Amino acid sequence: MKKTTIHEIAKALKIDSSTVSRALNDSDRVKAKTKKRILDKAHELGYTRNMLASNLRRNRSNTIGVIVPRISRYFFSSTIAGIEEMAYKAGYNVIICQSLEEVDRERKILRNLMANRVDGILISVSMETHDNSHLTACFENGTPLVFFDRHVAGMKQTGKVLIDDVQGGFDATEHLILQGCKKIVQFTAPMDVEIYKNRHEGYRSALKKHNVPYDENLVFVSKLLEEDGYRLAGKIVEEFDDVDGIFSTNDLAAIGAMKYLKSVGRKIPEDIAIAGFSNEPTSAVIEPSLTTVDQSGTEIGRLACNLLLDYFENGNTLVNDRTIMLPPKLIVRDSTKRK
Amino acid sequence: MKKTTIHEIAKALKIDSSTVSRALNDSDRVKAKTKKRILDKAHELGYTRNMLASNLRRNRSNTIGVIVPRISRYFFSSTIAGIEEMAYKAGYNVIICQSLEEVDRERKILRNLMANRVDGILISVSMETHDNSHLTACFENGTPLVFFDRHVAGMKQTGKVLIDDVQGGFDATEHLILQGCKKIVQFTAPMDVEIYKNRHEGYRSALKKHNVPYDENLVFVSKLLEEDGYRLAGKIVEEFDDVDGIFSTNDLAAIGAMKYLKSVGRKIPEDIAIAGFSNEPTSAVIEPSLTTVDQSGTEIGRLACNLLLDYFENGNTLVNDRTIMLPPKLIVRDSTKRK
Repeated sequence: MKKTTIHEIAKALKIDSSTVSRALNDSDRVKAKTKKRILDKAHELGYTRNMLASNLRRNRSNTIGVIVPRISRYFFSSTIAGIEEMAYKAGYNVIICQSLEEVDRERKILRNLMANRVDGILISVSMETHDNSHLTACFENGTPLVFFDRHVAGMKQTGKVLIDDVQGGFDATEHLILQGCKKIVQFTAPMDVEIYKNRHEGYRSALKKHNVPYDENLVFVSKLLEEDGYRLAGKIVEEFDDVDGIFSTNDLAAIGAMKYLKSVGRKIPEDIAIAGFSNEPTSAVIEPSLTTVDQSGTEIGRLACNLLLDYFENGNTLVNDRTIMLPPKLIVRDSTKRK
Repeated sequence: MKKTTIHEIAKALKIDSSTVSRALNDSDRVKAKTKKRILDKAHELGYTRNMLASNLRRNRSNTIGVIVPRISRYFFSSTIAGIEEMAYKAGYNVIICQSLEEVDRERKILRNLMANRVDGILISVSMETHDNSHLTACFENGTPLVFFDRHVAGMKQTGKVLIDDVQGGFDATEHLILQGCKKIVQFTAPMDVEIYKNRHEGYRSALKKHNVPYDENLVFVSKLLEEDGYRLAGKIVEEFDDVDGIFSTNDLAAIGAMKYLKSVGRKIPEDIAIAGFSNEPTSAVIEPSLTTVDQSGTEIGRLACNLLLDYFENGNTLVNDRTIMLPPKLIVRDSTKRK
């Protein structure tokens, strides 16, 4: 069906199109009585306002672009839910894209979002994103950018909403030490991604504080998939039989490790205590339940979106490299309770 | 920073704006050499194409609107991932909105998406959506609509991608009967939502086939949250002590029930066998692992998006009330293995 235009409304009422346009934009220059006639006729003819046209006039799309590695990962779907909640309240649409952990795809998505004149971009970068040229192009072109969770270090002119990953890594590791673990393995993703670098730093500083020697052979780098955790736990059992604690920087790999250890009859937490990171729904359900670090995904999403909305209103706050840092929350469950 | 315009590129090269415009649209009417000069200059000046303007000319936004009850629910984030995957390949953006199970919010979102001239809408309706006036307004206005999973019955002129919920309910219930269950409770959401009506129908027809009497007192209606399952399991233990099977039409409520039953020392599946629906990641991890019906979320998302893309190309396929029905997959795990 054809869409109703302003001109058709004007013709039906035998008045000027510009008057119709003013009335639909709620201008004071049209009498209340005339306005009502026009709105009634617009409704009768099934007119819907063409936001595309009015957005073009303002050279804005009333849209926020969001890029995450994977929509279906619980942490990211929670942040998206928080972003959408705030954007909806403020009258913005949210375009969601997933990089699938590929930097090339991330680049293409950014170009496309800019071509579509999104008003701002919220991004959690892929594991492959090590340089920031495609990201600087974005705000140099006038599109504000806010990182949440996974970010690239050393970029001014962007906002950031993070959890204190150093503290999170520290808390989880110190907790394992206080539960009596003497030899603690770390599972991490490549450490050119800031959050993994920071969680590792937390791990090391907890060891240092408690005079546990650091051994780089106990740090295992992978993509942190469930099968990585499963495989690495096998390696630990075969090659490092005296390991009595695992700090995994996500829950997925921790759960993989638990599945392997249970399959070979190791007791959790008695033989090996395990702590994860991110508080996925599965972590509360697995037995024993998994100690983990909560990242408040929905809250991160809300705050990141608010930072952008704040920028739309006040213009210049992001250039100060504004960072909102949320405290992590250690959730102690059965997988580490040795005392 | 100001955005570079076509006119600035034209001025810098001392050529006509229309030639620049043609070159940027890759027209054959501009010589290859000139085209290259223009593209190089455009790149140098940081020009990005204004899709907003070209979309307006076509009166299209190259955008698909998606409405789901909750983004963070695993099934929906999986469908969104599948939708985004297909849309990305076809060069479309995806605007994601969540109704939060409220029909009023769903109505507002639909109006907004239409005002933004989305090219089509994919929707899984809220639990409150019983009539379809806001949905018919949508395609009567020329915007095609495709339902996935949760839909409203009796609407022509829309596409649908569903799983065979009757079959899914039948398979889960028959499986419980074949495992020796004699008195099987059903947990359901309100049955004016089609999918819950259909799963219930499947439950009843399995009972009928195996000559198990139907008892409406054994059908419990709730919002199917985890706490609903927990509470209802308590009610069952107190009031219906001979119940030996539960068919829950989602996993969340099944998991709530398992938690309660374990807390009071009931053995699963020996005392009570439990089957869920939707194959959430938690269902594989809980102990005993939960028998469930897989809904292939990502595949549903891909197919729903393709149906819309197909409509964009061929125009009239949706009006035939086209439905794609996927077979459900019963995943048998430990929570029902009594034999």
